[in-house]
Amino acid sequence: MRTLYHYPLCPYSRKIRLILAEKKLDFSAEIERFWEKRPEFMKLNPAGQVPVLVDLNGSVINDSMAISEYLEDAYPERPLIGEGLLQRAEVRRLVGWFDSKFASEVSVTLLMEKNIKRYISMQASSGPNSAVIRSAQSMVHSHLDYISWLVDRRNWLAGDDFSLADITAAAHLSVVDYMGDIPWDKHPIAKDWYTRIKSRPTFRNLLLDRVPALAPSSHYADLDF
Amino acid sequence: MRTLYHYPLCPYSRKIRLILAEKKLDFSAEIERFWEKRPEFMKLNPAGQVPVLVDLNGSVINDSMAISEYLEDAYPERPLIGEGLLQRAEVRRLVGWFDSKFASEVSVTLLMEKNIKRYISMQASSGPNSAVIRSAQSMVHSHLDYISWLVDRRNWLAGDDFSLADITAAAHLSVVDYMGDIPWDKHPIAKDWYTRIKSRPTFRNLLLDRVPALAPSSHYADLDF
Repeated sequence: MRTLYHYPLCPYSRKIRLILAEKKLDFSAEIERFWEKRPEFMKLNPAGQVPVLVDLNGSVINDSMAISEYLEDAYPERPLIGEGLLQRAEVRRLVGWFDSKFASEVSVTLLMEKNIKRYISMQASSGPNSAVIRSAQSMVHSHLDYISWLVDRRNWLAGDDFSLADITAAAHLSVVDYMGDIPWDKHPIAKDWYTRIKSRPTFRNLLLDRVPALAPSSHYADLDF
Repeated sequence: MRTLYHYPLCPYSRKIRLILAEKKLDFSAEIERFWEKRPEFMKLNPAGQVPVLVDLNGSVINDSMAISEYLEDAYPERPLIGEGLLQRAEVRRLVGWFDSKFASEVSVTLLMEKNIKRYISMQASSGPNSAVIRSAQSMVHSHLDYISWLVDRRNWLAGDDFSLADITAAAHLSVVDYMGDIPWDKHPIAKDWYTRIKSRPTFRNLLLDRVPALAPSSHYADLDF
């Protein structure tokens, strides 16, 4: 059986879960508390990060970008990176935007402060840093504006077709939405785009995720939010 | 003329300069002080980051991963990502290791503290944070150990052939080496690997880089260091 080691609120794990679902590839999802550095897990991925994919043939694929590209090449039937040099570059540019810029400014920062920090000892402080949380919450607006700007001109983020750009953006936004930090009422165009993705059958599984001691926002799983 | 907007000590920019050189593609290199958010530059890349590639046909490609994949597809003659699903996944895994893990633990952290911070106003502090610098300097050892472990078993980082994994690792390490923070004497196997890359004609240009108010380490440009 294909196996994905993941953490429910990890946006990079969510991205791979969505790709696997969109490509209709069955997999067993194993929750990995990656911060515990379990020896068997560290053998699979010396970087100690999720997601890790073990494919049918036993091949171990690490790093969410490497897994995305691997799945696109190995299972090309439902393409998600698109066709043509420039279209593929545009999809990957937006993947980079959300995996790097949005992650450091908003999603991964909030995830660390509100969830992961309770499991690991941090050098500087022990509890959530409210100044860091407020800063990340304020940064989300410019990204929602950018999403709105893009989908005002295109059908999906990177162009006519649903792509890995939409999957990556939605994976990150869904984590922030779980924590209740997306001001949807101020960004109706971005909300409309997210509603379209949230309604896809492939997204349903993510809406069932729960982690200990951090309840999702009241509208998190609601398709009419 | 093909144009690359870059910053001399940006490891992601260095990666693209090395790819272009390895693929023997001419380009004009324009230094971009990206933190100034020059309006014409922000039009090219709303993320405000280097590198940005403007290719011969005027196409603008952003995000170092997107540029890498674009160059590999557009100019496949001298392949750098390798062949076969698993080989390509291994190259990309190591690219991710250095672009994410090494960057946040060592290279980008040191670059921010020792160089970029003097140009931008930081919320928390104005000068370099010596505790952060010491932490990054201590983290470099485990990465050099990992490089040694890999090249003890393989000819190059990802296998038999020189690849984007070597380019990416060397791009990040070279920035740290400029700042004098690589303890080469304690890591002879990693040093041997770096010497092989540093001796390539494609690397020469990086060894000529200088930035204001931050002199390179005495051995930075020395091939026999």
